This record gives sequence, structure tokens and C-alpha cells, in this order.
Amino acid sequence: MINKFSEYFSLVIGAVNCYFCNSFSRGITMYRTHNCGELRISNVGEEVTLSGWVQKVRNKGGMIWVDLRDRYGITQLALEEGVSSFESMETAKKLGREYVISVKGQVIERFSKSNKIQTGDIEIKVSELIILNEALTPPFTIEDETDGGEELRMKYRYLDIRRNPVRANLELRNKVSFETRQYLESQDFLEVETPVLIKSTPEGARDFIVPSRMNPGEFYALPQSPQTFKQLLMVAGMDRYYQIVKCFRDEDLRADRQPEFTQIDCEMSFVSQEDIIQVFEGLTKHLFKSVLNVELPTFPRMSYNDAIRLYGSDKPDLRFDMQFIELNDVAQNQGFKVFDSAELIVGINVKECATYSRKQLDKVTDFVKRPQIGANGLIYVKYNEDGTFKSSVDKFFLPDVLKTWAEKAQAKPGDLLLILAGEAVKTRAQMNELRLHMGNELNLRDANIFKPLWVTDFPLLEWDEETERYHAMHHPFTSPKEEDIEKMDSNPGEVRANAYDLCMNGVELGGGSIRIFNKQLQKRMFDLLGFTEEEAKDQFGFLMNAFEYGAPPHGGLAFGFDRLCAMLGGQDSIRDFIAFPKNNSGRDVMINSPAVIDNKQLDELNISLNL
Amino acid sequence: MINKFSEYFSLVIGAVNCYFCNSFSRGITMYRTHNCGELRISNVGEEVTLSGWVQKVRNKGGMIWVDLRDRYGITQLALEEGVSSFESMETAKKLGREYVISVKGQVIERFSKSNKIQTGDIEIKVSELIILNEALTPPFTIEDETDGGEELRMKYRYLDIRRNPVRANLELRNKVSFETRQYLESQDFLEVETPVLIKSTPEGARDFIVPSRMNPGEFYALPQSPQTFKQLLMVAGMDRYYQIVKCFRDEDLRADRQPEFTQIDCEMSFVSQEDIIQVFEGLTKHLFKSVLNVELPTFPRMSYNDAIRLYGSDKPDLRFDMQFIELNDVAQNQGFKVFDSAELIVGINVKECATYSRKQLDKVTDFVKRPQIGANGLIYVKYNEDGTFKSSVDKFFLPDVLKTWAEKAQAKPGDLLLILAGEAVKTRAQMNELRLHMGNELNLRDANIFKPLWVTDFPLLEWDEETERYHAMHHPFTSPKEEDIEKMDSNPGEVRANAYDLCMNGVELGGGSIRIFNKQLQKRMFDLLGFTEEEAKDQFGFLMNAFEYGAPPHGGLAFGFDRLCAMLGGQDSIRDFIAFPKNNSGRDVMINSPAVIDNKQLDELNISLNL
Repeated sequence: MINKFSEYFSLVIGAVNCYFCNSFSRGITMYRTHNCGELRISNVGEEVTLSGWVQKVRNKGGMIWVDLRDRYGITQLALEEGVSSFESMETAKKLGREYVISVKGQVIERFSKSNKIQTGDIEIKVSELIILNEALTPPFTIEDETDGGEELRMKYRYLDIRRNPVRANLELRNKVSFETRQYLESQDFLEVETPVLIKSTPEGARDFIVPSRMNPGEFYALPQSPQTFKQLLMVAGMDRYYQIVKCFRDEDLRADRQPEFTQIDCEMSFVSQEDIIQVFEGLTKHLFKSVLNVELPTFPRMSYNDAIRLYGSDKPDLRFDMQFIELNDVAQNQGFKVFDSAELIVGINVKECATYSRKQLDKVTDFVKRPQIGANGLIYVKYNEDGTFKSSVDKFFLPDVLKTWAEKAQAKPGDLLLILAGEAVKTRAQMNELRLHMGNELNLRDANIFKPLWVTDFPLLEWDEETERYHAMHHPFTSPKEEDIEKMDSNPGEVRANAYDLCMNGVELGGGSIRIFNKQLQKRMFDLLGFTEEEAKDQFGFLMNAFEYGAPPHGGLAFGFDRLCAMLGGQDSIRDFIAFPKNNSGRDVMINSPAVIDNKQLDELNISLNL
Repeated sequence: MINKFSEYFSLVIGAVNCYFCNSFSRGITMYRTHNCGELRISNVGEEVTLSGWVQKVRNKGGMIWVDLRDRYGITQLALEEGVSSFESMETAKKLGREYVISVKGQVIERFSKSNKIQTGDIEIKVSELIILNEALTPPFTIEDETDGGEELRMKYRYLDIRRNPVRANLELRNKVSFETRQYLESQDFLEVETPVLIKSTPEGARDFIVPSRMNPGEFYALPQSPQTFKQLLMVAGMDRYYQIVKCFRDEDLRADRQPEFTQIDCEMSFVSQEDIIQVFEGLTKHLFKSVLNVELPTFPRMSYNDAIRLYGSDKPDLRFDMQFIELNDVAQNQGFKVFDSAELIVGINVKECATYSRKQLDKVTDFVKRPQIGANGLIYVKYNEDGTFKSSVDKFFLPDVLKTWAEKAQAKPGDLLLILAGEAVKTRAQMNELRLHMGNELNLRDANIFKPLWVTDFPLLEWDEETERYHAMHHPFTSPKEEDIEKMDSNPGEVRANAYDLCMNGVELGGGSIRIFNKQLQKRMFDLLGFTEEEAKDQFGFLMNAFEYGAPPHGGLAFGFDRLCAMLGGQDSIRDFIAFPKNNSGRDVMINSPAVIDNKQLDELNISLNL
């Protein structure tokens, strides 16, 4: 019987030892008494059993050392002729990288200790070693710095995750979600699961849809967010709701977007914007403290208008300065046509860079002229150490004029002004790119420094040139600011919303708003967005109905969970904080999904392909 | 400006008070200083602000009492002419059920205290009261016992959730998930999110599918469970994985099944069945202790074969006795044709029921003869208090023979034997139904008593008459028991699996298995299941590939989370433990989903309807 079984295994492992035949392998603790990260000098003398993957083998003839790895660490194994069994020595000689093995032996003090691993004081004097499973040579090295490219790593993601950095990212993600729940539970939030099979709404991004077999011709949609459900939970009196939840958007994927992503989704009743900001600033501080041991001070706040004016972005990176300086009043009407015809002339003060060479300045100019940025050119003013000025517009402006610019920019001798001019919206966007570029160039964007910022007072609406109508900047349920309500008729574009974003280091971590809880105001909002009453009823009727039965004032917020994890992990890309991400075509290259399906399945669903 | 705003609201609230115009309503704590469940005698004298829903109004002319409700409790408000403002009194007179209001006032000791609510010692002497939102009269009463039927409650689920019992269920659910995470984190489990957009596999139940716009003609599928991903995570070295995760099955819905449901999904490496049982028995004990303060003793275990033999079910309800007694040896070959031709004669001992009347016995007989049960008849033997016997087969058997049956059943005078006979599998199933029925009749199935049981040693395979091949009883990755491997060729139907279920009170809470981690054995299993090599490769190729690179021994388990919550809540139906459940047609009657979608959406997805 046993023989029969061992035959199956010997096909694969080709070894004398079969795991199931080994006497030491029976009982509850058959595979291990300890993991590979926990043995210390205090364990010396103990008989232990360890299991894991072979990280490295050094065969010195009579002695063989093996680094054994699992999720918890690495432990060094030592096999020696005469000490280890003959079979174990023979087996050890056959070990390859990533073989799965189990060993029995005694913990001994190491002769030459290592402080690179936590178990570096000890090693295991192995008496028995067996192979649990062989392994083909991995297509890339299972090391911190691997030789595998992105596509290969994704195809063999189950090997990629064995690497410390990827595993550490997933461990961090787990820690972040766990601590998020610890904090929110302490604040009386209830996690409520909202449905995944919901209903398509044309508003916003494209939905993924799911044909219903039981309801032919009808479809579910996957949620882009639980927005309406969380508002219904407030009508339902749940008071404080949260959920760490998968959301779905069928977008053409830009770099670092995923068709399925995770949100920390929250909603609160009987609150003002200030209450929500307090709670989620608290959450953010808790996460940085508990995950990174970083204490964040009180978060600064900035209005949307100020953020755009001073940084050309609604998510300014505050790790470095270079606020925008508007120069129209000191640079126009002096005969330089480029400036005189510009709606906006805006500069940044790049400190201590007056020494930039012609070549360096050309490279910066090339940067802003790239099609993605789209500037026509760049003007520089060097405020030299000796107090003189050198600029690309010396022909048009006297040094005294340049000095007024420098003063406005609070530039000191040694500083460099970089100036763009043109249509205001575009020029601010270009200057934002230039500012971030200079921040990168000057190493001012340290991933281990965290600068949070609340951006508030977002516009309620944005005008869409194409459809010639207003869109909700946040979503159609966002409440206008009380004092701007009167402008909803006269000047809708100027109405500010009770909406707020939390950004950090130039990245949006999350955002939210106080919702409209009054049915009449909601109707007015739908009017502004160009919804007919019928459309509004069809798409949001259940929410508007709910509002008839006693809706409390409420508001909420959602954090991009993948992004938050990447931020805490000090990385730009979210992909390595997701266990099984999809590529830019929405494809999982490991399982090769999406894929064609049986015609029988299509028939059952009452749909056919239309290619 | 303020006037303009109040106009919007006065349209709805028709009140003198507009929330935004009220001076007390400004500032961070504008809506409330306390919730409706927290004020006590020690708060007497404090000025407080409360907000919530109007549960009840009693207008006694000069005095008006209002019960104000929120998630946390109910607080009594008292308004009095001369004490409360004139406007507040006028507003209070207009209040209807479920109006949302905010009040300011002083906490005073109540004249007649109530011990029914936690705030029963105090009430609020209201100085100001404003309406935040009116409410139409709800379509059913917001009380513990409501007059609303199931369909109406589901349509207005946001009102149903305001009811204490439903809210309490959702709070319990939150507690169960929170404590599940506390326990599993303490055991070194990592929560890892697996993808929702995966790939369809024909094995098992029907998948929900999702057309891919970016990959025309191809489809994602929603996971029926994260089975393959969790196994890949073991190959990836994650060692201990869990996830509380939504899963999806496109089944014809039986009562109390949901197309989307939640699992506690787990997997562990380097473990035996015993390790897994220990960990999840520990989890179950932790949940009963932390949620219900119930200490469960060590769980008994029973083999699948014993469970079927003794209870006719793989999830026996152990809250009561009535084990099956097989009577073939003492009842056959004595001339009673029904017995003589039967494969199995099986009885249960219904204690102290020899006094059952003819009418009562007829009702029990009618029960087993219902088409859903399908027995041809029922035989009874009364062991009377005076030691005599009375049975429906007195013609065929002498009292001495009946006495041997009674002895076998350990029946005492006063007990009643109920006996069925026929084909073994069917008769056991019928007797299982009868046993549960008698348990219900005799009130032996108390929802507040919990009897867990591990059922082990499930068959690896089950024969499907229709397709004339074996199906995996658990799933194709379940490992056979080492000692039964040899039977995989000779007698596959007798091979037992390393598979185990946790059941409780006759309900399956969860189950799992040790997986095959050897590629050759996995191949053998696919052979047995009738997969061609190509089919196996196409559907599970990525998993079989992964097994080439060093798979550890592993196994796991999944708990039905909705069912677990219902069990802890002492209820049979899972529906009220899900915030927004679907009905038996898979429809969400609140949002009216699924629904038709735009042709434009279908075109973009390259599919068309085929009705």
C-alpha cells in the first residue's frame, strides 16, 4: 500500500526518501516544529523539524550547507558525513533551487555568525533530510533583485511572490487593512458588505456587465463604487459604515490602473465636512504610526483654487517648495510679445540653480516642449551669485525689471527662475509638470517623506466642451456649499462643493463629500447635469425614493486602497501591492484570462458574439 | 443667500425652522453631542444636542413626548409649553413617524423610569427642536415585529434595516468578521485579496461571466471560490492565507441560496488534516465565545460512513438523540414481505412517545409519505408503560420479537419506535427527514444550543448515473487518504479523501480538504474524473504548471460566512444577515436589478441578445 503510494511520488521526486514513508513525518507536527524565521541562540540543543524551500546549496564535499526559506525567514542547515544519515547526504547532493524539503536535526550555535538574517546565530545539524517536492529551475531568480522582467514575473506570479520584496508588499497590505479595521471599529464604524451584482448606470466610467441567465436579456453590472448603497445605509440608520471593497471600472487602462481595484469606503450620518476630515485624518495618522512608526503632524489644508493657483494641480506635492509666482503685473506691456499676449505668466524659483549650464537648461526646455507637456518654450532668469542677472529674455527686459521678478519670487543670488506663459489653464498644467520634474531632478521627492494635504472646496461642476453640459466633478450626490447655492442658477460653474480630497506627495489618496440629503436639491442638481426626470428616476429612483422616508444629513469618503498601500510601501506602482494584478490589456497572463467560453454557456445566457 | 437656501428646504420641510438657519446648528458638533443610546443618570444637568428619527410621538396638549431613535438606542424627549420655544412646540406637533430631527436641551431625571431602554433613567427637556428631513409614512411599521411582508421589506430594505432585529443581525455579522480576523491574524494568517475577474471553468456549478470589451469575444468569470488562487498562494510560499470573500454561483436558486455569497476562505502549508481541524475548531470556539459568550467544548468527530449509517446525513443534528437502529437481523425472514424484500430496515427510538394517538401517528405517516420524502409507509411500535407492545405490524410479529427490536433500540417502556424499510440510500435519507421532523415536533432543536461535529473521511469520488463517470465529491484537488491510494485503480468509489466538514445543528458550516500537491497524483485524479490531458491543461494548466516549481503540502477550508452568521444569530435563514439580498429569481427588488442595458453597451462589448 505504502509502496504503491511512494511510486506515485517517486515518479516526481526520484528520491529514496518518500515523505509519506518517513517515520518522523507522522503526527500533528509532522512537517515542522518551528518555522524558518524563529530559531535563536536560546533554542540551541533542541531537536527541531523544519520545512521550506531550498534557497541555496553549498556543497563542500563532506559538508553541505543549505539555506532553507519560508515566509518567516531563512535558516541555515548543515549536513555532515557521519553526522547526517547516508540517505540524507545523498539526497542533499541532488537538491536544486526551490526544492521543497523537510529536515530533522539539532539546533547548534553557528561558528561564523551572520547578522544579515534573524536566525544568524544558529544552524541546524541535520540528521535526516527528505524531499517533499522537486522543482524545475525557476524562470527567474528568487532573489530580492531578480533577473525576471515584468511580463515573466507576472506569468509566474506564484514564484514572484516568493521573493522578499513582493511578499513584504502583500504583508504590508494585510497590515494596512487590518489596522484600518482596528481604527474604524474603535470609532463605531460597522463594516457592511454591499452587493457586487448591481445595476448599470451610464454616469461615470464604463461598467463591467454580467448577463443574467435567469432573467434573459437583462444584465447585472459590477459596482464602480458602493456609492448609492452606502447612502442607502445612511437612510437605513447605520450611522457609520465602512467597507474594504473591490470596485470595477472598464476603462482603457492607463499605466498603473487596474480594472478591479480596492477601496476603503466610508459614510457617516449627522456630520459636517469637519467631522469627516477629523476621522480620516485620524485613520491616516493611525496607519502611518502602526505600519511605519511615522508620526504625521496635523494635516495642512488648501482650497482647490489655491492649489491650482500655487501648484497648478489639485494634488500638490508639498515635499518641496517652488510655489508658482504669477508675473503678469511685472512682466507685461514691456514689448515682449510672448508675454504681452499671454493670459498667464508664471514662474517658479529653483533655489541654488543659477549655475545651471546651457546644456542643462536646454534639457529642461526640451522637457517642457515634449508633446505630452506641450509648452512652446521656456524662459529662464539666472540670479547670479554676484547679483547680476542672465536670462533668455535679456533683449527685452532690463536687469532692474528682472530684479522685480526675482523679488516677487523671493529669489536670492544663486537662484534660478523658470517661466512659462500662455493660456492660463494649460500653462498651469505645464508648470505643474515642470515643477515636479525639477523636484525629481533635484532629488526633492524622497519616498520616505510624507506630506499630506487636504484639498477642499472643489468646484461642484465642470463644463464638458464636447457634450456642452456640466458634469459632476465628484458625483451627482455631492452637496454644494451652503453659501454658493444661490449661484446654482446664475453661475453654476462657480459653485463650490462640500468636497475634499486627501492627497500626499502629489498623489490623491482619497476623496469624498457631504451629500445632498434633500430631495429637492438633488432634483435641482440632476437638472443642472442635464438628466431628464425620467432618466434620473430610472437610474437613481431607488435612492430618490429612499430620500422620501427620512434621510439624515450624511457624507463620506473613499480611499484608494491599492494606492495607499503603495504610498506606505514607498513605491510608485500599485501593481506589486496586488497579489494577482492584470496587465494594461486587462489580462491576467498567469491564468490567461479573459478567454473564450463554450457556445453552450453563451446559449444559456441568451447572448451571441458579434465580432 | 440663507433665504434662498431655506427655500429649497422649506419646499420639503414646510417648517419655520430650517436646519441651516439655526444658530445652534453651526460648528463641528452641530448635529449632536451624544447619540441616542448613551445618556445616563450621570449626565443629568448637561446641555446636549441629539439627532435621529422619530419613533413615536405622544401629544398631551401642553406636553409632547417624542421617542428619538438612532443606531445606538432611543432617548425620550420632553417638550413643554413655556419651557420649549414656541417654534419647537409648533414643529413637534407636526412630527410624523420617521421624521429626522435635531434637538437641543437639558438632560433631566425621568419621573417614571423605564428599564426597557438603556437611557430609561433620563429624558431631554427640549429647548429647541428642528426638522432635518420629513418622511412619508413608511409602507410598514419600523418595529421589532413588523407588519411588512418579505417582498415589501426587501423593496424598502433601507427602512427594514432601521428595525432592531435586522440592524442587530448586521451588527452581529460585522462582529463575526472582525473577530474572525482577530483570531486568524493571531495565528499568523495573512489576508490576501484574490481577483474577482477570473476565468470560467466548466467544472462545478455555473459561472457568472463578464464580457471583456478590450478583448473582443473573450470573457472573464466571477469566482465560485478562490480555490486555485489560494493553492497558488501556497506554492508562492504565503504559508497561511485567509480571506473573507465574495463568491458567485449562477445556480437556479433554491430557497435560501444567494447568487453572491461570502466565504471565510483559508489555506495552510506544511500541515496535516489535524492541524487544520485544530485551527478552525479554535476559530469557531473563539467566535462563539467572543460573539455569544458561549464556551464550546472539544468538538466530536465522526466518519462520513458513520454519519450516514447513524443519521442518514453527512451533517447530523446532534442536539438530540434518535440514532438509527438497523433491524434487518431481527426483523427479516419472518414473513412480513415489506421487510423481507427491503435492503434496509431502520428505526429510531422516539423517547416517551408511546402515548402518541392514532391521529398523531397518522400525521407522522403523512409526513413521510409526502412526495418530497417519498416513503411508502411508516411502521410504529409502541412500548407501553405496562411493558406491552402495540404496533402497526402486530399481525406479523409476536411481542417477543418486537421486544428484541426494542432492546436493540435501547427503548424503555413508554418509548415509541418508528421504522422505515426499503432501498438503503433512499431509506436512510427518508429516515433522516423523519428524525429531524420528530426533533422539531418534540422541540428538541433549540436554536440556542450548539452542537458542532467534524465529519471526516468523505468519499473522494461520487458516481454520476447521468454522465456515467465519477465526479469529485469535494473538488478535483482533494487528496485521497494515503491508505486508500491503491484503490484508485481497483475500486475508485471506495477511496476516502482527506476531506472534512464542520457541521452544527444539522447545518454544514464549512468544509475543506488536504490538497494533492503532487503533479502525478493530480494527473491520476484528472484521469479518474474523465478529463483529457488537454482539458485539464486548458482549465487548470496554470495550477499544474505551478506544481512543477516546488509545491508544499497544503490544505484548507472554507466556511460559509452567511450561514455561520445565521447560526450565531440563532436563525435559519441567511437572508436577514445580508444587507441587500436578492430574491429567488436572483433579483434585487430594491434597485430593480438585473435590468436591460443600452444597445451601445452591447455593441461595445461585441455581443448581441439572442432571445
